[in-house]
Amino acid sequence: MNAHEVIEKVIAEHGHIDDIFWVACGGSLIDLYPAHYMVLRESKIASGWHTAAEFTCDVPARLGEHSLVVVCSHSGNTREAVEAATLAHERGAAVIALTDSKGSKIDQDDFIVWVYPWGDGVPTAEVPLGICPMIAAEVIRAQEGFEAYDALVDGIAKMDGIIEAGKQKVNAELGARFAELCQNHDFLYILGSGPNFCQTYGFAICSLMEMQWQNCSYINSAEYFHGPFECTENGVFYFLQLSAGSTRAIDERALAFLKTHTDTLMVLDAKDYGMDAVDASVRSYLEPALFYAMNVELRAARGKVFDHDPDMRRYMGIETY
Amino acid sequence: MNAHEVIEKVIAEHGHIDDIFWVACGGSLIDLYPAHYMVLRESKIASGWHTAAEFTCDVPARLGEHSLVVVCSHSGNTREAVEAATLAHERGAAVIALTDSKGSKIDQDDFIVWVYPWGDGVPTAEVPLGICPMIAAEVIRAQEGFEAYDALVDGIAKMDGIIEAGKQKVNAELGARFAELCQNHDFLYILGSGPNFCQTYGFAICSLMEMQWQNCSYINSAEYFHGPFECTENGVFYFLQLSAGSTRAIDERALAFLKTHTDTLMVLDAKDYGMDAVDASVRSYLEPALFYAMNVELRAARGKVFDHDPDMRRYMGIETY
Repeated sequence: MNAHEVIEKVIAEHGHIDDIFWVACGGSLIDLYPAHYMVLRESKIASGWHTAAEFTCDVPARLGEHSLVVVCSHSGNTREAVEAATLAHERGAAVIALTDSKGSKIDQDDFIVWVYPWGDGVPTAEVPLGICPMIAAEVIRAQEGFEAYDALVDGIAKMDGIIEAGKQKVNAELGARFAELCQNHDFLYILGSGPNFCQTYGFAICSLMEMQWQNCSYINSAEYFHGPFECTENGVFYFLQLSAGSTRAIDERALAFLKTHTDTLMVLDAKDYGMDAVDASVRSYLEPALFYAMNVELRAARGKVFDHDPDMRRYMGIETY
Repeated sequence: MNAHEVIEKVIAEHGHIDDIFWVACGGSLIDLYPAHYMVLRESKIASGWHTAAEFTCDVPARLGEHSLVVVCSHSGNTREAVEAATLAHERGAAVIALTDSKGSKIDQDDFIVWVYPWGDGVPTAEVPLGICPMIAAEVIRAQEGFEAYDALVDGIAKMDGIIEAGKQKVNAELGARFAELCQNHDFLYILGSGPNFCQTYGFAICSLMEMQWQNCSYINSAEYFHGPFECTENGVFYFLQLSAGSTRAIDERALAFLKTHTDTLMVLDAKDYGMDAVDASVRSYLEPALFYAMNVELRAARGKVFDHDPDMRRYMGIETY
């Protein structure tokens, strides 16, 4: 599949796109957020980001034939995601269904089904964190022009090298420390901002709650000063995901406070992990791919020390719910 | 002030409104969410909900002379909120600034300043959780017609009685239990969905983290099954805010799982608290006012047992940050 051709077809069939809705659950929803944020900031197209059950339950009034709905279900069988895609199609919207699983329930003729590969060594360009910004960029370029288009293509190509180098660095510098901090703290706060807030949330709900049964919470660095910082004191564990992008100043404000108000702070600075190589105009939209990969390393490091394989589940896909 | 007259003036000056942006920080941001959700579901007007620092840093491309920006700062002196209002005005948008504080920094001639009263006995209609749905309703009615308008006005009028009765009920049934559960658990998860997710977040970051220095996390009930539920087991404390509105089925699914997977569950069912008296077409948009009031009672109950006055701060408004 190729975002340019897909969007050409969508626009040919739907005339023009007024809205993009990004709809999924959990880890797949997380992957759609940077592209949503990009549309808000770069384009006159309206954009919405919805957990699938709420989208189906409280259908946005703007949903219709000039809407593009991007639904992602990694397994392809997530009930809420399939229902959302079906509803969107019934309302006349163009539906792109991203999935890792050909032949799954979401693999239907009513949708433009984009099956993506998954696993070690798959390039960023081929997974949702790379595909979705390109889908957005193609719609924006076709309808309004998009100055940062070439920078985005270039940035996506650079991410694989950045991530590969980052894996070694994060394991050497933070892996053991993170696992040890988890041994000594039942709970942690994860902070981040901008498009990368999806990985702040994602590290919490997927990597830690789901894959490590580790209690934690996630806070937008901008919101930290409007309540959550009152919990900060020595012994309370914070992990700050420091953006190298447009919201860096927001994270730096949190960093300055955390440094002087807790003795248990871990920082992952995307600037130290090579994100400077990506043009500033698109850096924010791509750094979630770096943070995601680092989250994977950190959960693996914790998993080893706790003898808790990140692939182990007790409920998901096992029980009925 | 009166939402009808304010919106008449806004539309007279700006021709028509294509976007409403709801912009604030922390507790004030929380209060804007139900109106944002209502616009998405009920109207062709685009709607965005933004923490103020991100709004100013990554300005939405649609912001302009046909935008209405509703900024709320309770103190009127929140730097990020004032900056966001100023930016929005410079971009030609209509700016309504809600504040409790006349003469504060946000009380400027460039904005339509709406000073609201605060404290025990102030009707829902006069505080942001009542004002904002009416602002949204007036814009929708003026531009598209709004069938649920009368139901909304009627519902807001009913909220004060519902809340008053709710205070007694929640104190009798849940107050002591909540405080005791907090004594026996260092951490809890709060779950909710739909417009009320703002009070799920708000109970976490304002009532508990800020006002009780109580560590906790907040989870959308729809997202619970896509990661967070793997943490659930006996001894892990969950508080479910069960909606009486459009997303009730989402919360009920979480309830069914929680009931059989943890022995430490507290439920506040809005249906048992009288929300049935409000028409189903607008119930979701108003029940956050009930949940907010119940959060206030629960934090007070905890505060007494812990001898921690909810008005006590160690950093906010005390240190420089």
